[in-house]
Amino acid sequence: MNALSDLQATLDPSRKSWIESANDSTQDFSIQNLPFGIFSDTRDATRRVGVAIGDEIVDLAALQAEGLLKLPSKADVLTRDTLNEFIALGRDAWRSVRVQLSTLLARDTATLRDDTALRSKVLVRQADAQLHLPVQIPGYTDFYSSKEHATNVGSMFRDPKNALLPNWSEMPIGYNGRPSSVVVSGTPVRRPNGQLKLPDQERPVFGACRKLDIELETGFVIGAGNALGEPVACADAEAHIFGMVLLNDWSARDIQQWEYVPLGPFNAKTFATTISPWIVTLDALEPFRVAQPVQEPQPLAYLRHDGEHAFDITLEVTLRPQQAKQASTISRTNFKHMYWTMAQQLAHHTVSGCNTRVGDLMGSGTISGPTEDSCGSLLESTWNGSKPLTLQEGGSRSFIEDGDELTLSGWCQGVGYRVGFGTCVGEILPALS
Amino acid sequence: MNALSDLQATLDPSRKSWIESANDSTQDFSIQNLPFGIFSDTRDATRRVGVAIGDEIVDLAALQAEGLLKLPSKADVLTRDTLNEFIALGRDAWRSVRVQLSTLLARDTATLRDDTALRSKVLVRQADAQLHLPVQIPGYTDFYSSKEHATNVGSMFRDPKNALLPNWSEMPIGYNGRPSSVVVSGTPVRRPNGQLKLPDQERPVFGACRKLDIELETGFVIGAGNALGEPVACADAEAHIFGMVLLNDWSARDIQQWEYVPLGPFNAKTFATTISPWIVTLDALEPFRVAQPVQEPQPLAYLRHDGEHAFDITLEVTLRPQQAKQASTISRTNFKHMYWTMAQQLAHHTVSGCNTRVGDLMGSGTISGPTEDSCGSLLESTWNGSKPLTLQEGGSRSFIEDGDELTLSGWCQGVGYRVGFGTCVGEILPALS
Repeated sequence: MNALSDLQATLDPSRKSWIESANDSTQDFSIQNLPFGIFSDTRDATRRVGVAIGDEIVDLAALQAEGLLKLPSKADVLTRDTLNEFIALGRDAWRSVRVQLSTLLARDTATLRDDTALRSKVLVRQADAQLHLPVQIPGYTDFYSSKEHATNVGSMFRDPKNALLPNWSEMPIGYNGRPSSVVVSGTPVRRPNGQLKLPDQERPVFGACRKLDIELETGFVIGAGNALGEPVACADAEAHIFGMVLLNDWSARDIQQWEYVPLGPFNAKTFATTISPWIVTLDALEPFRVAQPVQEPQPLAYLRHDGEHAFDITLEVTLRPQQAKQASTISRTNFKHMYWTMAQQLAHHTVSGCNTRVGDLMGSGTISGPTEDSCGSLLESTWNGSKPLTLQEGGSRSFIEDGDELTLSGWCQGVGYRVGFGTCVGEILPALS
Repeated sequence: MNALSDLQATLDPSRKSWIESANDSTQDFSIQNLPFGIFSDTRDATRRVGVAIGDEIVDLAALQAEGLLKLPSKADVLTRDTLNEFIALGRDAWRSVRVQLSTLLARDTATLRDDTALRSKVLVRQADAQLHLPVQIPGYTDFYSSKEHATNVGSMFRDPKNALLPNWSEMPIGYNGRPSSVVVSGTPVRRPNGQLKLPDQERPVFGACRKLDIELETGFVIGAGNALGEPVACADAEAHIFGMVLLNDWSARDIQQWEYVPLGPFNAKTFATTISPWIVTLDALEPFRVAQPVQEPQPLAYLRHDGEHAFDITLEVTLRPQQAKQASTISRTNFKHMYWTMAQQLAHHTVSGCNTRVGDLMGSGTISGPTEDSCGSLLESTWNGSKPLTLQEGGSRSFIEDGDELTLSGWCQGVGYRVGFGTCVGEILPALS
């Protein structure tokens, strides 16, 4: 059997695992998924590389120690506190690990299934584990690639008749984010203080953000960098991507509105960006590849690629007030609506010669769909606070309040299985006084 | 003698070194300077920590191995390929090394002066050394803090009567830069390709930048970070700064003009940023502290500090065409003109709770003075190319041409000595075709 057919077999929808929790078709971590992350647990506080399956984590370092996982390099990359060194081994290594795991975890493979002692060494229950930031992020870039989002924002703050700026349809607009404040799901987020320009006052005041918002995004993680001065061609770009995460680009709308001219958002975004802990590989997303929206005008040559480069990923946002039992769904949309593809984003990012490095994070930009209930930010769904959302247990929201817990989730629905991202959660703490 | 008086003694203008090249009053690396960098040399390709003095480099790892340099930690921080671990030891450690070096190198200290064999172990001629990027840069932020520069740009592209945007006088406007493409002086810079919007065409074209420019800046390097959610007070900010470098924020004006709305510059800046290899410590700059310009309106409370927080640093830019023997001076200005101070920049950067880390680089923004020959960019000095500069050996420049070598230099002039930054050099290679 050659490597490609092995890889193909990992995507077989009929493959089931002896880990029964993985076989539920509404559960994120099927045997078809096998996302990578960094975890520690109650028995061992060492951060190390794991793969999620059902409600368990496979401890890859333990698996390697038992001789059940072969890597192409003898370097110790699995007991590191980030995935960077593992990722740097290259795509053949990621794929080889995927194939080995898929086999080991398949229902008809007895090695672990029938060996309780071995299983207890290499499996950790997710309930007993803590998840950490999966990669050290040398650079973080955020794009602005949803046409619906850019149109909504342009209509609100500029001119509804010319909502899209002329450059928007020609390139995936992006800007540099702040890598230091990217945090893993579950990290509480403190409401930022900053300069607010109130309409009735000539000068700005200093105070807590009054228009705290989410931005529902995905992010992709660079798996193979490019050297300075050597652009990545659009057709080659996906080979440079390790995988995807959910990303919440927390935004202080009032700070942003006052500060962003002429150099873009800064303090309004640098206080926190939350990502989900499991990186879903592009290999696992392959069955959910769909056509991107038609691009008109046709992009310049360096932004063209043949074939399908969007992915059918259902995305959802819920908000749970501090005292509430139930969370309210405040948005449901899909990644496939994105106008610019990840490949185009990376080609554009590097066309000037800019280098990228393993672990670089690239945010999609807010993902809004075509309908009112598919907006990726409260700015849009409440139309800058003018049309508050009603919550399920009563109450309403124009923007986020202290104690609110915001949860992004996302998944690809296969026949009988899911390739899901888990959740990307953050609770808001009150501002420093 | 206590530590502070030891530190004071390192600034004594009358102190001379037995390294005679350090005693020339027009030479950058006096015994009062002692800047830190990373070097390798013809005898030993290992990157390691060095300090410049005259035309020599003191090899700190060799000095430590000889028992002549004590560090507060036993960790091996001096044979690293960046300064980050040394810097992370903290300000007391930087200062202790400064004091020890100043004593060892002083004219009346015999230890090295009279021991040829020892000297040959711990000194490397700069002519035999290669200098490397001094820090691994986890985050790079660029500010926009020269009032003259912001006014020039605002006059050119917006409205000469309202050149400054309303937020400019209220905060040190900044944006996130791209850390991956920060390179050390001497690294050739390739002219970027990108989207250009020509006035006579409806759609952009793809091609080589036609308006390649410099931005004369300084940068400061974070020596002590702050935790997420814990702002740095303006009064404490300088204690978080390790030192300063020269910084050339290469800019593709035509790419910038088309791409920058609404999220700020991206491809126009991410292809390269050059910094000088020696980090001049804030301690060495202390004698050159001067009052910052009067700030009107008075800044909000979180941006206020007592005392003097500007530094008198003469800055110069030269341009040498490929075949030319002589470089032409195209700008001369001073860092003291900057409206917002480094302390205010850092306080503003962190006021939202944004964290910083050791090695983070913060660019000042283009430093332009009040006169036409003190502009920090060609955009300003040629007024967007409309008034070309005449070069010394004939020819002229609207923007940078292929083969041009641009050199920034900077120094503080003391009585009988200089605290200089060396140079920050880059030669332009033709664009990829």
